[in-house]
Amino acid sequence: MLEFKIKKNIRTSIMSAIKQLREEFTELRRYQYISALLGWDTQVNLPPGSYEGRSEQASLMEKLYHEKLVSEKIGKIISECEKLNDLDTTDSAMVREARRKYDREVKIPTELVTEIAKTSVLSHKAWERAKEKSDFSIFEPLLGKMINLEIEVANKLDTGPTLYSTLIDLFEPGATYNWIKSVFDDLKPKLMKIIDKLTSSDDKPDFSILTRKYDPEKQWNFSVEVVKKLQFDTNFGRQDKSVHPFTTTLSSTDTRITTRIKENFFSSGIFGSIHECGHALYEMGYKKEIHDTILADGASMGIHESQSRMYENIIGRSKDFWSYWYPILKSNYFKDALRDVKLDEFHRAINTVQPSYIRVDADEVTYALHIILRFEIEHDIIEGKINTSEIPSIWNEKFEKMFGIPIMKDSDGMLQDVHWSGGAFGYFPTYALGNLYAAQIYNDALKKKPSLPVDYKKGEYGNILAYLRENVHQHGRIYQPRDLVKKITNEDLNPDYFLEYIKNKFYPIYRI
Amino acid sequence: MLEFKIKKNIRTSIMSAIKQLREEFTELRRYQYISALLGWDTQVNLPPGSYEGRSEQASLMEKLYHEKLVSEKIGKIISECEKLNDLDTTDSAMVREARRKYDREVKIPTELVTEIAKTSVLSHKAWERAKEKSDFSIFEPLLGKMINLEIEVANKLDTGPTLYSTLIDLFEPGATYNWIKSVFDDLKPKLMKIIDKLTSSDDKPDFSILTRKYDPEKQWNFSVEVVKKLQFDTNFGRQDKSVHPFTTTLSSTDTRITTRIKENFFSSGIFGSIHECGHALYEMGYKKEIHDTILADGASMGIHESQSRMYENIIGRSKDFWSYWYPILKSNYFKDALRDVKLDEFHRAINTVQPSYIRVDADEVTYALHIILRFEIEHDIIEGKINTSEIPSIWNEKFEKMFGIPIMKDSDGMLQDVHWSGGAFGYFPTYALGNLYAAQIYNDALKKKPSLPVDYKKGEYGNILAYLRENVHQHGRIYQPRDLVKKITNEDLNPDYFLEYIKNKFYPIYRI
Repeated sequence: MLEFKIKKNIRTSIMSAIKQLREEFTELRRYQYISALLGWDTQVNLPPGSYEGRSEQASLMEKLYHEKLVSEKIGKIISECEKLNDLDTTDSAMVREARRKYDREVKIPTELVTEIAKTSVLSHKAWERAKEKSDFSIFEPLLGKMINLEIEVANKLDTGPTLYSTLIDLFEPGATYNWIKSVFDDLKPKLMKIIDKLTSSDDKPDFSILTRKYDPEKQWNFSVEVVKKLQFDTNFGRQDKSVHPFTTTLSSTDTRITTRIKENFFSSGIFGSIHECGHALYEMGYKKEIHDTILADGASMGIHESQSRMYENIIGRSKDFWSYWYPILKSNYFKDALRDVKLDEFHRAINTVQPSYIRVDADEVTYALHIILRFEIEHDIIEGKINTSEIPSIWNEKFEKMFGIPIMKDSDGMLQDVHWSGGAFGYFPTYALGNLYAAQIYNDALKKKPSLPVDYKKGEYGNILAYLRENVHQHGRIYQPRDLVKKITNEDLNPDYFLEYIKNKFYPIYRI
Repeated sequence: MLEFKIKKNIRTSIMSAIKQLREEFTELRRYQYISALLGWDTQVNLPPGSYEGRSEQASLMEKLYHEKLVSEKIGKIISECEKLNDLDTTDSAMVREARRKYDREVKIPTELVTEIAKTSVLSHKAWERAKEKSDFSIFEPLLGKMINLEIEVANKLDTGPTLYSTLIDLFEPGATYNWIKSVFDDLKPKLMKIIDKLTSSDDKPDFSILTRKYDPEKQWNFSVEVVKKLQFDTNFGRQDKSVHPFTTTLSSTDTRITTRIKENFFSSGIFGSIHECGHALYEMGYKKEIHDTILADGASMGIHESQSRMYENIIGRSKDFWSYWYPILKSNYFKDALRDVKLDEFHRAINTVQPSYIRVDADEVTYALHIILRFEIEHDIIEGKINTSEIPSIWNEKFEKMFGIPIMKDSDGMLQDVHWSGGAFGYFPTYALGNLYAAQIYNDALKKKPSLPVDYKKGEYGNILAYLRENVHQHGRIYQPRDLVKKITNEDLNPDYFLEYIKNKFYPIYRI
């Protein structure tokens, strides 16, 4: 009887520490949701004269979040939970993520956070001017400062094994420089060979089809129709317009996406919408048990990106997909603009592969090269192997080797991306990991649900969503990204799936 | 030299206590703005499945606000400030309002707040059902509970001189039962005489003009055009659609209004929009010095209502106003629906006076009677002179005496308003005070700017706005409502201005 009582007491104390952890971090999650609403409203609704007031509100919420997270109380609860054994997968993931968040916030001194916040505002402005004038010297001193600050962050966090790995881990938990390098080293030469083949083809798609004039309102309506069909549930989300497309989550029952329409470029609106829809379906798919908790979040940036890119590229740019949608697009939306364009031509146009300068406009084949370039340079920057002043020349040299075209101005080169101006080193690789995860997971999906391509021909997306809900979405942040991929596919990340997918898709398109 | 130093030190300590007060209450104001965004988004954008998550976020913000406001730190700062002499008008108003807010929050025990919150949810539901079935017995027990809770609140606050006065003061600072009673006692018989004259007229407006079918999209566009012309500045605000029209402020540079359109009732959309615009212009007009502070708020509910009703009724339902807008409305929006309607008929229709059951649908003449009825009954309820069970019979008896029509069901009587179900006793009188303030202030405006009616004929609203900015808006909550009206008009509130306005306007309309 006594033994039973003790066991019961232990059980109770486990429950209460875990319960407290769950509750405190759910409250913290709500702070983040409120911040997310402030952010969403800023981009979708804010009157032009109100940015200052809004920015004060955003800072206030961040301050409150920070104060709560670093409080002694939270530290104690986490330590209590870490003493517990026999936690189930979800609870132990909760403790792991709580520790992660807490340490990241506690280890970095407030002065450093403030210094980064201040510097990044200046740095962002300098970057904008530098990009506009294509003049690196305007950005150089502040970039140097941001680099030093990020190195300081990496030193303080010290999750290792190297400084750059520490920074990568902020975005892709568990990923290291060496691991990603081994993946990219395998991928890079094979990918370059494929690109070489494609660009040497004599039978190329006619990209200009997409740059005709497409009425923005019709584009918007079409994107709403497609997104709805993909099972974006407007009971638990919204779609709006904004200058930059994005997805944001305001609670586990409220995920919102935005769409940017370009009148003279058809791809922007529709593929942007499908991309964000992929992100949103992930956020909408967490199982009830983890709703609004610290685990109601993507496993990593890379896994998140795998969901958006699977929808955008693997599904959304497939022939099966458009064999359903193209007749609708043509007859209900753009009778005139597409009068002379057949499905096959359209499908080839949206899959044009072309080495180009700007990462965000890159096709899904050359995209990874843009990332590998940044990954290599970021590593050398953070590990102190190159000076800030050398970045443009190193960028340009590497770029020409990889893409076969020379960079004529830095705004087409190292000045194109916003990331470094905000200190986001280690973020880029997650984009490419997303593509690789997507191909590997999708390969598994096809094995388990071979009828998927037939579904798309009928405009049906229930089976793919069910697969993703079951294997990816429901788990939220319970599993670390590498573990999740292994759990799903019984294999560590393997770039061959991506390479196979690329070959199978693009060789026929390029008549190879 | 020494004396100078001491003075300087005193000055410094004044500055620092006041500065702290200002900063702390500006931060508290930001909590409220964030809450306001949560509320606005709930009514304008929220996906139907997300109410629960949103309500948790709203409670969180309220909790944080409460915890900060009742903190020892805030109490000390206020006490420090209260010791200071020689404060200027703004600073001493800031101290007065801080004390008011602080005391209200501190004096009412948390358990009572929780009890009210819980009860009012149940009470609201019971009221809805009772109203739907027109069955008072469903609402009676919870109404009784709410009454007792509000009496407890009044006892705890004890700002006096009577319980009901204490509750009134929550909405209309400085107003007492006796003062309002003396105003209403003067107003009531005179108003009833006017109504009698109007309803006895043989030449009545044709109200049915307004209940034709008016395309909602066109109504919306028209309301946007009018509101813009009234100088609602979309650099510092927005107009959206919602189920219930309202105004909300998300910072001193972001005030938003909403419009409800009814296809079969033209007045709803346009006059609702003008009404909310009147509220918004007030909120947008606080002087920079008090932006985002505790004083960036209306002087009272009554003064706020005076601004909305001045725009809606005195300006927006005037012949001068429509002599500009009616041709536009007819030619650009409703050519067909208004084909056979002349300006004069339209103007008479929008100014139909008709004793009726429902307060929110009442015209500007009979409106005050609805309020006086509630004021008299509320007083007797809170002062314990009548039991809950007696309310319907007392209501119906009083109503028939005042309006000359008998109440056949309680849903047309005491069950029509939501206020009591939430415990808002003392709120109603502010609506009527709003009408009276509006007439008195507008009388002054006309004396100082006699060209106003000519402005409206030209669709110009710069002079009236400049007058209101100068005399009302800029001051925010610096002056208490009665003081503000005295300051502007050199006279205490005097209902004769309203009665004169009513006679001058409605006798001609009713051919008297």
